[in-house]
Amino acid sequence: MTIVESSGLPADVYSAKCPTRQVLDHIAGKWTVLVIDSLLQHDTLRYTELSRRIGGVSQKMLTQTLRSLESDGFLTRTVHPTIPPRVEYELTALGRSLAEPIAALRLWTEEHINEIERARAARD
Amino acid sequence: MTIVESSGLPADVYSAKCPTRQVLDHIAGKWTVLVIDSLLQHDTLRYTELSRRIGGVSQKMLTQTLRSLESDGFLTRTVHPTIPPRVEYELTALGRSLAEPIAALRLWTEEHINEIERARAARD
Repeated sequence: MTIVESSGLPADVYSAKCPTRQVLDHIAGKWTVLVIDSLLQHDTLRYTELSRRIGGVSQKMLTQTLRSLESDGFLTRTVHPTIPPRVEYELTALGRSLAEPIAALRLWTEEHINEIERARAARD
Repeated sequence: MTIVESSGLPADVYSAKCPTRQVLDHIAGKWTVLVIDSLLQHDTLRYTELSRRIGGVSQKMLTQTLRSLESDGFLTRTVHPTIPPRVEYELTALGRSLAEPIAALRLWTEEHINEIERARAARD
């Protein structure tokens, strides 16, 4: 099946000019994988909960990742008018559909780590 | 199922110190996705063929991506003693097993690009 992109050209991530390439760049990043996978497991999370779960993420990188995921339509950001305001993130239907290939990537990594470490040790 | 990593700790990509995190960082990158996916489709490719297929990749980024994939055991690099030498890249069994979640990510991107562009337009 050829997917025709809104410009009328076929979608092709191999082309630097295709909009799919920019999206691939957003979703194929370790922070995106970890944010989307966290939200799949917990439905709704606050900023502080995400930053606690995802070891080693800086505030700058987490904020940037969340903004780009919101702008692509993968998650919603809801501000509850409490004092102090409570900000919650949740996957959209589009984000949930992305969660499946994302979770496959995380699981693959966890399942194959020993094989990869052996490959590295054999080379060293 | 809990995967126990060679250090004796359970594999956990959420932990900044877990070796799975470094692997996730290598495989969850747009260049990695495009290199692995290309090799899955073409079995064996030369450096110049990869660089021609993957629009917009710099020589530096392609070389770095190929080295990291080789060191993780995802592909082999074979130098044929011709004049000039012919250098070919091919997926290992480990690399082919990674190709499935990788291809799912590429396909998801191509299939959902119109929905994402509508989400962006609605926000702008």
